[in-house]
Amino acid sequence: MAEYRRTGRTRVFRKPGRGSYDRDLVHSILDEALICHVGFVQERQPYVIPTIHARDGETIYLHGARGNRTLGALTHGAACCLTATLVDELVLARAALHHSLNYRSVMVLGTAREVTDPDEKGRALQRVVEHIAAGRADEIRGPDAADLRSTRVLSMPIEEASAKVRTGPPVDEEADLDLPYWAGRLPLTLGTGAPIPAPDLTRDLPVPPHVSSWSRRNGLRT
Amino acid sequence: MAEYRRTGRTRVFRKPGRGSYDRDLVHSILDEALICHVGFVQERQPYVIPTIHARDGETIYLHGARGNRTLGALTHGAACCLTATLVDELVLARAALHHSLNYRSVMVLGTAREVTDPDEKGRALQRVVEHIAAGRADEIRGPDAADLRSTRVLSMPIEEASAKVRTGPPVDEEADLDLPYWAGRLPLTLGTGAPIPAPDLTRDLPVPPHVSSWSRRNGLRT
Repeated sequence: MAEYRRTGRTRVFRKPGRGSYDRDLVHSILDEALICHVGFVQERQPYVIPTIHARDGETIYLHGARGNRTLGALTHGAACCLTATLVDELVLARAALHHSLNYRSVMVLGTAREVTDPDEKGRALQRVVEHIAAGRADEIRGPDAADLRSTRVLSMPIEEASAKVRTGPPVDEEADLDLPYWAGRLPLTLGTGAPIPAPDLTRDLPVPPHVSSWSRRNGLRT
Repeated sequence: MAEYRRTGRTRVFRKPGRGSYDRDLVHSILDEALICHVGFVQERQPYVIPTIHARDGETIYLHGARGNRTLGALTHGAACCLTATLVDELVLARAALHHSLNYRSVMVLGTAREVTDPDEKGRALQRVVEHIAAGRADEIRGPDAADLRSTRVLSMPIEEASAKVRTGPPVDEEADLDLPYWAGRLPLTLGTGAPIPAPDLTRDLPVPPHVSSWSRRNGLRT
């Protein structure tokens, strides 16, 4: 199935033309977004927490220290909403009303479970490192038994998900087209500054290509 | 009061050294973040929705079309969590476990109310345009009566809020320091591409400075 099932909870109601249930699109947004925001409820209060995620097929992995409250709340089957958003362009119209952003976002609803199998846990943590910087998993010390014990990994299946995308120019009203105001788009890009070596590096190591050539768009479209 | 009151719901428990309740810091993060993620609950399911916000003093404004479901849910006093996050640097350690991000995030808990006063509503929408591109509010057509009718504006007081900030180099374990792996930070920057004029511009208008010199860090630190 190339598309996720539409449900009353993920269907895009306003401007349904912006909605998509395409798996490849959902995957590409989740992969490009460095972080996501996870929502859960405690005592009727919603909390929205930024966190790093990683995708492996139709599974999203989250991780954190064993004492992490968000993971603790989610481990026991609490309803979860995971949203990842990329802002691509400012959309600058002649009228205040028609200002917008071009963006790509994904919302995944579901529940998480704790990953206890050491092999899956190790693979998930490797995916997290690769999500941050593709190619880095081969140039670090992987988790040992103590690291695995102190880290909690959750998995959440991507079953109920939708994407929402806006592209294209501003849409002004006919009557405003001749106003003397510039209108258009301003593309936003995620760039990098010069790498800053750790002060406790004990050797003169070159900056590896996965750092010097780090790029969000190129790194994860696999 | 220079700080927000600490509550059981906003206090940073894990790594409390990263937590802050400083008003200026909270304001600066909200202002620099182009979008936020808003969480609310419907039928026990949390939803996390990306949206543009704007701040005016101790008030956050949200807006959208009258049919917008998120605003509809929030208008009637539903508990809300608004989170804004800036990712500043990748933190690349020698051990997988110690990889991290340097970031600044703000979480605001509260409830929203609909803004019906036309003056406040107009001011709020102006703040939204200025939030997107500082200086632009003077070079557009402001909202007329019909625009105001079709737009819903919500306000949320910043009363219960906290920031969380990580800065600095990776922190590896002593035993790993001599491993032959590069460690350090990669700064991330929000840049811009060349402005793309709207195809229906009827005049040859220059790109205004608030677009050609658009910069997130400089624009809103007021």
